Amino acid sequence: MKAIQDYYPDELAQCFGCGRLNAHGHHLRSFWEGDQTEARFTPLAFHTAIPGFVNGGLLASLVDCHATGTAAGAAYRAEGRAMDSMPPHRFVTASLKVDYLRPTPLGPELLLRGRVLSISGRKVVVEVTVSVGSEVTVRGEVVTVEMPESMRPPPAPSHGGTSARVRHE
Amino acid sequence: MKAIQDYYPDELAQCFGCGRLNAHGHHLRSFWEGDQTEARFTPLAFHTAIPGFVNGGLLASLVDCHATGTAAGAAYRAEGRAMDSMPPHRFVTASLKVDYLRPTPLGPELLLRGRVLSISGRKVVVEVTVSVGSEVTVRGEVVTVEMPESMRPPPAPSHGGTSARVRHE
Repeated sequence: MKAIQDYYPDELAQCFGCGRLNAHGHHLRSFWEGDQTEARFTPLAFHTAIPGFVNGGLLASLVDCHATGTAAGAAYRAEGRAMDSMPPHRFVTASLKVDYLRPTPLGPELLLRGRVLSISGRKVVVEVTVSVGSEVTVRGEVVTVEMPESMRPPPAPSHGGTSARVRHE
Repeated sequence: MKAIQDYYPDELAQCFGCGRLNAHGHHLRSFWEGDQTEARFTPLAFHTAIPGFVNGGLLASLVDCHATGTAAGAAYRAEGRAMDSMPPHRFVTASLKVDYLRPTPLGPELLLRGRVLSISGRKVVVEVTVSVGSEVTVRGEVVTVEMPESMRPPPAPSHGGTSARVRHE
């Protein structure tokens, strides 16, 4: 199944948090699950803060990328068009708020859930929770905006369906 | 010159963002500069978001670690004791708010500045800005708290003689 991020054009798929073309990134992948989005991520041993617990900066990064992915998916839905239709949506973060409700244990898979709180114009506000098992450990609220044209890179030279599916892990 | 993080005991120096003992981490190092703190960090090429700009999750991570480091430093100062005195201070993040004021260009060195907004009991609130040249690109506000005893790992084996570092509250 393709993740929302799999629809990002190659030149916008370089992100350290979720870019499929970033050789050193976290490769977060977000999927629709009904009206919400989900992503699963198992931190590595070095993604620690205090030993035994997941690094808060990494958690913020996952929340961030899951939110911008959710925003892109929601923008397509709001327009009633498919995620492989043009032009592509790509959101960036204006403001990120992360509450660490309790320490997140390092080891188990994390489940991120995204929920759109509002869509208005180019702005999408997304709530993201991080859970381990049945326990929510982190709650984030992210104000995302459609990437301004001033940030847009030129299209990748080899842009196409095949290379868009290349993942480096 | 020793950074604030250089005073963290070995077992608390594993952090992905600022742990000197994390082989894969960012190794952020924070220093007092008068009443403020500073840290400098040059992102690597893969620390990107949209090409040409620094990843927002990485920026959040740097803000986070600079804030917890600043909080630890401030806690020693508030008690009028040196950072190599016992017991060690180590703060964790309760809440992280990051406003991305403008895109942060990827390439130049980033300057993080920390300023203590309040200290009360075990809680220290820190403002952190990220600048490139004379331009502030990011502003963060971080609520940090002294690490709870429930998170404390055992002292690192190579420091068996320093078990006095274990705090009992």
